[in-house]
Amino acid sequence: MRGVCVKDMTWKEAEARMKEARAVILPLGSTEQHGYHMTVDTDNIVATHVAKLLAERTDCVVLPTLPYGQVWSAKDFPATISLREKTYIELIKDIVISLEKKCCRNVILFSGHWGNVAPCKIAARELLDECGYENVYYFSYMDLKKNGEGIMETELWNGSGFHAAEIETSILLHIHPEGVNMEKAVCDYPPIPSDADIRPIPWIKFAESGIFGDATKATAEKGKQFLDNWMNQMCALITENIRYR
Amino acid sequence: MRGVCVKDMTWKEAEARMKEARAVILPLGSTEQHGYHMTVDTDNIVATHVAKLLAERTDCVVLPTLPYGQVWSAKDFPATISLREKTYIELIKDIVISLEKKCCRNVILFSGHWGNVAPCKIAARELLDECGYENVYYFSYMDLKKNGEGIMETELWNGSGFHAAEIETSILLHIHPEGVNMEKAVCDYPPIPSDADIRPIPWIKFAESGIFGDATKATAEKGKQFLDNWMNQMCALITENIRYR
Amino acid sequence: MRGVCVKDMTWKEAEARMKEARAVILPLGSTEQHGYHMTVDTDNIVATHVAKLLAERTDCVVLPTLPYGQVWSAKDFPATISLREKTYIELIKDIVISLEKKCCRNVILFSGHWGNVAPCKIAARELLDECGYENVYYFSYMDLKKNGEGIMETELWNGSGFHAAEIETSILLHIHPEGVNMEKAVCDYPPIPSDADIRPIPWIKFAESGIFGDATKATAEKGKQFLDNWMNQMCALITENIRYR
Amino acid sequence: MRGVCVKDMTWKEAEARMKEARAVILPLGSTEQHGYHMTVDTDNIVATHVAKLLAERTDCVVLPTLPYGQVWSAKDFPATISLREKTYIELIKDIVISLEKKCCRNVILFSGHWGNVAPCKIAARELLDECGYENVYYFSYMDLKKNGEGIMETELWNGSGFHAAEIETSILLHIHPEGVNMEKAVCDYPPIPSDADIRPIPWIKFAESGIFGDATKATAEKGKQFLDNWMNQMCALITENIRYR
Amino acid sequence: MRGVCVKDMTWKEAEARMKEARAVILPLGSTEQHGYHMTVDTDNIVATHVAKLLAERTDCVVLPTLPYGQVWSAKDFPATISLREKTYIELIKDIVISLEKKCCRNVILFSGHWGNVAPCKIAARELLDECGYENVYYFSYMDLKKNGEGIMETELWNGSGFHAAEIETSILLHIHPEGVNMEKAVCDYPPIPSDADIRPIPWIKFAESGIFGDATKATAEKGKQFLDNWMNQMCALITENIRYR
Amino acid sequence: MRGVCVKDMTWKEAEARMKEARAVILPLGSTEQHGYHMTVDTDNIVATHVAKLLAERTDCVVLPTLPYGQVWSAKDFPATISLREKTYIELIKDIVISLEKKCCRNVILFSGHWGNVAPCKIAARELLDECGYENVYYFSYMDLKKNGEGIMETELWNGSGFHAAEIETSILLHIHPEGVNMEKAVCDYPPIPSDADIRPIPWIKFAESGIFGDATKATAEKGKQFLDNWMNQMCALITENIRYR
Repeated sequence: MRGVCVKDMTWKEAEARMKEARAVILPLGSTEQHGYHMTVDTDNIVATHVAKLLAERTDCVVLPTLPYGQVWSAKDFPATISLREKTYIELIKDIVISLEKKCCRNVILFSGHWGNVAPCKIAARELLDECGYENVYYFSYMDLKKNGEGIMETELWNGSGFHAAEIETSILLHIHPEGVNMEKAVCDYPPIPSDADIRPIPWIKFAESGIFGDATKATAEKGKQFLDNWMNQMCALITENIRYR
Repeated sequence: MRGVCVKDMTWKEAEARMKEARAVILPLGSTEQHGYHMTVDTDNIVATHVAKLLAERTDCVVLPTLPYGQVWSAKDFPATISLREKTYIELIKDIVISLEKKCCRNVILFSGHWGNVAPCKIAARELLDECGYENVYYFSYMDLKKNGEGIMETELWNGSGFHAAEIETSILLHIHPEGVNMEKAVCDYPPIPSDADIRPIPWIKFAESGIFGDATKATAEKGKQFLDNWMNQMCALITENIRYR
Repeated sequence: MRGVCVKDMTWKEAEARMKEARAVILPLGSTEQHGYHMTVDTDNIVATHVAKLLAERTDCVVLPTLPYGQVWSAKDFPATISLREKTYIELIKDIVISLEKKCCRNVILFSGHWGNVAPCKIAARELLDECGYENVYYFSYMDLKKNGEGIMETELWNGSGFHAAEIETSILLHIHPEGVNMEKAVCDYPPIPSDADIRPIPWIKFAESGIFGDATKATAEKGKQFLDNWMNQMCALITENIRYR
Repeated sequence: MRGVCVKDMTWKEAEARMKEARAVILPLGSTEQHGYHMTVDTDNIVATHVAKLLAERTDCVVLPTLPYGQVWSAKDFPATISLREKTYIELIKDIVISLEKKCCRNVILFSGHWGNVAPCKIAARELLDECGYENVYYFSYMDLKKNGEGIMETELWNGSGFHAAEIETSILLHIHPEGVNMEKAVCDYPPIPSDADIRPIPWIKFAESGIFGDATKATAEKGKQFLDNWMNQMCALITENIRYR
Repeated sequence: MRGVCVKDMTWKEAEARMKEARAVILPLGSTEQHGYHMTVDTDNIVATHVAKLLAERTDCVVLPTLPYGQVWSAKDFPATISLREKTYIELIKDIVISLEKKCCRNVILFSGHWGNVAPCKIAARELLDECGYENVYYFSYMDLKKNGEGIMETELWNGSGFHAAEIETSILLHIHPEGVNMEKAVCDYPPIPSDADIRPIPWIKFAESGIFGDATKATAEKGKQFLDNWMNQMCALITENIRYR
Repeated sequence: MRGVCVKDMTWKEAEARMKEARAVILPLGSTEQHGYHMTVDTDNIVATHVAKLLAERTDCVVLPTLPYGQVWSAKDFPATISLREKTYIELIKDIVISLEKKCCRNVILFSGHWGNVAPCKIAARELLDECGYENVYYFSYMDLKKNGEGIMETELWNGSGFHAAEIETSILLHIHPEGVNMEKAVCDYPPIPSDADIRPIPWIKFAESGIFGDATKATAEKGKQFLDNWMNQMCALITENIRYR
């Protein structure tokens, strides 16, 4: 066995490993602007790295990362690519159905990009309703305030926004420092449009750098601590809820 | 500028680079069985590597590789994931539309997996009919016999099949030897079903190893030579036909 | 003019009124279980009543209430009817397109049922992307904790659940007391499944009464106060953001 | 039990009542112009009222009225809202499927708007073909000439048109007089376009008031008599054909 | 020029002819049971023959006949093939769009099968709404009672049914006698199910021969007379309403 | 029994014949330009004729020919009609499903037009995946070089193109000489666009006559010989692979 990554296995190796593993993890990223200081690959890096950690700690295997997602809000920034909600839902369903047909009945959708979460939930519901698949799980960033307590020093934008800001940048500095150029990191809290929560507004309309918060406060150490908290939370949920079958 | 890979750029860097480049290349792979001796990531490795070479030689930029494709024939092998034709078509269209909206009007779909080609052609036709996008190109393995002349020693299966056999294995040995275990390479010409060309037959019905040919004859040198011929052909086509705009 | 309700107008009256009004409000309800003490019409009653109040205070007109919605979570309870996400999205889009074609370019989707909000957002995004309609707004229950401060005495279920509990019951007692039978009101905090936030779980699997909280603490006075706060918040948002056109 | 209207029941009450009832009736209306003298809610008023009468006389229960329908012909009149044929079909199917899943296997689609009938028939056929649901029935205005014999004094427009004219106005005067302003009632037989039956022609192209006939001849008494005949016919059909199950 | 049939022309001939013709006629048939005495090709024979007559008399050209239609009612009879409503609608739309793109802006859908008419109307409406095509016309059997006055001796089944009975058989005897075997013609008025008009009932449930009426009374002379009346009516409508453009 | 053509049978005759036959053949044609010398009906003539020969030699029955197909490449020529890929796929599926429901579980899609083949394969795959139909076969022009060896004198265009050229014209001269006007036959090898194989290019962009090869070399004798070879190949495949059931 060559480890947890399906991509490094032959089909024979993967067959054996998938049968004994707890679940298969599908890392979901995106190709999306992440400010002046991080690459458009940021979500893919996080999805890939965290999914692998999860797999190692909970006896799962991990699939190749899907690097295109639902990125409606940032879609008008250069080099940002967005799939329509309905395309993304069908895509996720096809992959899960392909897996289920080969009897690995626990599938974890791990998203390193927040915009993927809503269509993942719809996909999981439809897989349950249409195919009877009960064991499709979704994870992404969770409980930022709790997991960042004592770590994060800056405010979330509009109460919940964190795109390319302190947290994400810190994680990148920890897991993939070559993807960050701190000299270009800025603090940018775009003015909150008064209609931000009552109609669809593409970010390009009011954002400048593409950051929503303060990236200058990021450190690798913060990233490590936050990731630890987050990992502990997710691993506990997985081991408690996802049974071998 | 950090090179040809969009994934290594910030949106600002990508914006500048995409404006001056000849075209954007989308590498299309798959997660598919490749015999006992190569990983299920083989098509992604080829797509990523060749797309990058193409970009370097023809002044293009390359996007992250899409690692899931239309893999109908092999879909019943373990660790092989297949998207429905219609899902794949919509997926490709969404990505191209996202790019076109940001004015990079030349898009090259480069597929390291043969099954992706047919839906790519349909997607390109629909993008032309529905959106007026004239400049969507598709490339994949071309003219195997001509490009492999004097290099390949073994026969194609049923006149055209080469999956995981001499050619693909040689390329992998050349560009990513750690993805090949030649000790497990076999020569496997599955019996050709008499109805192979007149109805849909999943490979699992008659294939054993998943190889269609003789992988034992593969060498890195053959891979290098074949790739040179193939690259020359594709680069000539690109520089002749795809104008800056 | 017979007031704010389009349903009470002839087309001539409605034509005149819609031209001068700030916006058209579409009240979105559902037919859904609301515990032992409230009818399945609860969301429709709230949607209709609140939309009318909004219209009166912000110079809008209000359409007939759509009494079927996306009710996935409660869908397995008797007399609960749920539309598929994609059907609901198309339905909302068709209604808005029908309105837009007749030049009332501000449309407010007001939902008295939480499950409608996600598909409303998708519909609004697609209306923007596909039709260029910029002025589709969505409102529903907002900021429960803030608007209920000093009023609500009981906890939200799992941090955010309030279905058929103190708040909703109080509002009903205030606006439509004949729709509540307080003798049947119960306090029911169903055990929170440990996987409640990581996969789709129909309520029928773990809920008993269909209430998520304490309905016994509801009073008409609380309903009045909460509604006042909520109305003030929404009216401010509307008058600030939705311009006459 | 609070009567025949599901909307006035809790889910527990509805559960008991739906189990013992003969069928569930879904009233289908529309928001559509009805001349200068009746409101755009006319079809909803008729659908709601008649469905309730039917339920009382045949031991059925009645759901909330769906106030948006397929209104292609009148779609260009102000305050008239039309759903696309395909949206309406999916909508009806979703509601029926939701009901069928909870074992009330007789469903009556009662339409107070003629344009809904064609998509209802398609929906019923598809429910039979795709889901095996055999017991979906559709009713609407039937046999106008026979049911109106000795009552109606004016001609149908183009042999079958009756929109907002003598019959409908009379029914409204009988069941909901506050929805009619007889001072604005007119006699309007729009010129019949010679191509009226051979291609799609929106009414706005040749109609003025939106009435197709003579509304001035309407009386409440006529409405009562027509409704009696129509009710008798429908009740006989229901009791003869729809068995308890 | 080789006449009115596009199928007998080269593209050059067709181009010239389509430019000067009044309209293009698309004959719509079906493959459907027509009793013991007529072939399943009956609707195609009628569609082809009548469309050609129409073309000759009104200066139109006629396309190849589409021999598959929407045949829901008869779909369970052997050798009867039915397309789903939605497939048929898309099919008609694609053909019309293909024609419109080449500037023949008058298109007549002539159906020799009644079941095609409803989806043709929907297709024509959608072509108007989505493409702005104003000039799509539909014709089929019209005013049977009036056109058959003094000719037909037998009753229509259930007031309107005529499938494979006196009229259709007479037309066939007139235009294609080799498609009729009068020795096998029968009189068959299947019992009218009491729920025939209130829910979808496939004919196979209550019909025996597949005939709805009395085929034994058919004669070629009756067919000729009926066809004359019908042709006169249609030609008048075409010449009056469909302008050269 | 009246022979092999379902269209010439009553449903009773067809029922008996379809039960005992090996398979049902669906001939697939198109309405497409075929140069200056052949009619737009050419593919339908070939499909009809060859399907009938096949049926006679392999104990099959043949359905009416579908005269509209996927004709993307030639779609911009006058009198050429093209269905969208997705419409054609659904159409084929509906017809097959209609046949399968009546238990003739072997279906042969015989296409006289090359563009139909790709969507036929997709349809056959989807029928297998979605309906479990294993016995849907597709045939069209096969092995032109081998079957034309010693017969054809001229080159294929761009290695594979033969539209309206020596082969097709010869077949027409043999089976339907009135469909050919050899005086208008030309030799036309349009310049091969250098990007012909790497992006979608409608023929209208570079072709003149619509012929791809040399039609002047066609003779009826060549057509007969080619057809013999082709028929022998197809009949052998059918009798070997398609079992009675």
